[in-house]
Amino acid sequence: MPHIYNFAVGNPDPGSFPAQELAQAAARIIPTMVENLVTYPGNRGWLPLRQIAAERFKKNNGIDLDVDNIALTSGSMQAINLCLQNFVQPGAGDTVIAEEYSYSGTLTAFRRFGVKVVGVDVDDQGMNMDDLEAKMAQQAAMGVTPKFIYCIASNQNPTGTMMPEERRHKLVEIARRYSVPVLDDDCYADLIFEGTAPPSLYSLDPENVVYIGSFSKVLGPGTRLGYFTAKPETLESCLTWKIDGGNSNLAAAIAAEYFKDHLWDHIGEVNGIVKEKLDLIEQHLDANKDVFPYHSHPKGGLFIWVKLPDDVDTTKLPDAALAQNVRYGTGKAFHSGNDDIQWLRLAYGYASLDDIRQGVPALANAVRQLQGIAVAPGR
Amino acid sequence: MPHIYNFAVGNPDPGSFPAQELAQAAARIIPTMVENLVTYPGNRGWLPLRQIAAERFKKNNGIDLDVDNIALTSGSMQAINLCLQNFVQPGAGDTVIAEEYSYSGTLTAFRRFGVKVVGVDVDDQGMNMDDLEAKMAQQAAMGVTPKFIYCIASNQNPTGTMMPEERRHKLVEIARRYSVPVLDDDCYADLIFEGTAPPSLYSLDPENVVYIGSFSKVLGPGTRLGYFTAKPETLESCLTWKIDGGNSNLAAAIAAEYFKDHLWDHIGEVNGIVKEKLDLIEQHLDANKDVFPYHSHPKGGLFIWVKLPDDVDTTKLPDAALAQNVRYGTGKAFHSGNDDIQWLRLAYGYASLDDIRQGVPALANAVRQLQGIAVAPGR
Repeated sequence: MPHIYNFAVGNPDPGSFPAQELAQAAARIIPTMVENLVTYPGNRGWLPLRQIAAERFKKNNGIDLDVDNIALTSGSMQAINLCLQNFVQPGAGDTVIAEEYSYSGTLTAFRRFGVKVVGVDVDDQGMNMDDLEAKMAQQAAMGVTPKFIYCIASNQNPTGTMMPEERRHKLVEIARRYSVPVLDDDCYADLIFEGTAPPSLYSLDPENVVYIGSFSKVLGPGTRLGYFTAKPETLESCLTWKIDGGNSNLAAAIAAEYFKDHLWDHIGEVNGIVKEKLDLIEQHLDANKDVFPYHSHPKGGLFIWVKLPDDVDTTKLPDAALAQNVRYGTGKAFHSGNDDIQWLRLAYGYASLDDIRQGVPALANAVRQLQGIAVAPGR
Repeated sequence: MPHIYNFAVGNPDPGSFPAQELAQAAARIIPTMVENLVTYPGNRGWLPLRQIAAERFKKNNGIDLDVDNIALTSGSMQAINLCLQNFVQPGAGDTVIAEEYSYSGTLTAFRRFGVKVVGVDVDDQGMNMDDLEAKMAQQAAMGVTPKFIYCIASNQNPTGTMMPEERRHKLVEIARRYSVPVLDDDCYADLIFEGTAPPSLYSLDPENVVYIGSFSKVLGPGTRLGYFTAKPETLESCLTWKIDGGNSNLAAAIAAEYFKDHLWDHIGEVNGIVKEKLDLIEQHLDANKDVFPYHSHPKGGLFIWVKLPDDVDTTKLPDAALAQNVRYGTGKAFHSGNDDIQWLRLAYGYASLDDIRQGVPALANAVRQLQGIAVAPGR
């Protein structure tokens, strides 16, 4: 099998994965855990990991979360699933609001529940508030109250944009005015390469916002460690759907034991590595402007959103790219309406620097081939 | 805080929990897992643990399962949840069939989905087939097709009964005749103290039965490691609702690494210990026949089902028992109709031998107090 240049999935950097430290943490903590492994974790899960979630939130937002009001989940996806179960009736044709371009996993879940997704324009500062206002008014005029607004305000997936503070205030104000709750998917909160993120949506209106976080992006999604919080009645209501006996104490305790000494060091290390990858991928995208006329300018996160020329058949590009050993995320997968669009998403956290150096030009060649442009071997 | 004699929850024996071996397994396996921790587990989960699930099934049923057709879940409860999402419309008033006395966690999930539970009589050989036949005919006469039959055939929870092979054949025959699928909750399959269990319901009709298993009862529910299998179309359909990014590779890999060398030894050790507890609890129940006129006679599992005198107010017994430092499972929690009944469930896996020696007489005294019988101190 040839080596694949894999820009398809939002995985973190493998090189900085703390395997030895995690193994040591496991060897330390497991022998102390008999009572907590032979009993059920409860529906909020391992307390020390909830404490670390609160510590992260405090550092990023300056606000103390009540750890009794945080519940661990199987990644952030389970939190999104529980919110869907809580707010939406499967198959009833409920309406939700999301960025026009949003996380493919969430969009797939929305479709599974049969919800109608109203996509709001996304510009280089994330969800556009004028368009949100317009879409909310349209829905109200039709007598529809959307079940929630789903938003990835920081390091948006797939566009990599960061919503400024003013827009965040506006968003929670609009949501409150229409009595529509907000799901604040803040999975990428710690992956910040420049400056700091504005306050999370949750911190601006804890009564009306559900906050969703994850350790997947700073440790690894194979651990399945996410969490969420909301006002107690909302959290409790969502948790009535958490019919899984709770989250693994084994996985949570190992991560907590590792993070209690290494959280900020590890995040700092990861950010340094991933920023280098971002800089390199931008450089290679810019070197191929004929086929990548525009890309977003992330200041954090794992994703860059890349415009394709209008004459490229995006339905043929995945195969053409794979012939060049490149995988990427199609625009369609991230489009709220499931349309083919002239965009693609590159995830740059997992790929090596060499993958970027070779994979981006290879992807550019695949685009050129579809355009009918002769490509010199080895270009 | 006083020491509590805890017979309330189906936890395994803490004394035989292999904490050191599990810690060693973690220290061995984690350093090899970088790739599998920085990527998503997929919706079937860690292959080596699925292989161990297949090994268990082969030993117990003589049949090879296709590991590609087994999916790991967060305990057996997530599998039950996925089946509910697949087969039932929440709030639509769908009907399901279950033993009249069944697992409280499943019954709670049934209620969350708003299903109507038709309870089938349970005798000392588990679900009664004459009554199942009658109830199915009743439903058919009303034009109702139940969404599934949920059955715990081996070491039934809460009654501790073992359904004989003949009944199992009958059950799958009835289910097929009415075109109703079966959920075969086989969580307690390995906890067998006498003889062997008859073939699982799944092995008798893999086309129409969903098989649900767990490592919780032989290792510990704090690990959250269950699994399920079904014919490929059914499994795939259930997994479209598995919106959680997959099960933790971290927890699954540690358990698999431990079990690959220790599965049968550990199960043998656990069974020896738990059988001793069962023998002791039966002895103490029999020594208090005035208040425990009848109990079931489990040949495996973690539960014994105990009859109370008719004149005892079961709504007052939990508090009276707690005043004696005893916790147990109320009959009501396990009643498909949520009725107060003159039964209680004692879980004997977690309690120590001393807990049993002191706790069962203490519970007996609590019953006597409710009957207005003077109890000598220290009796």
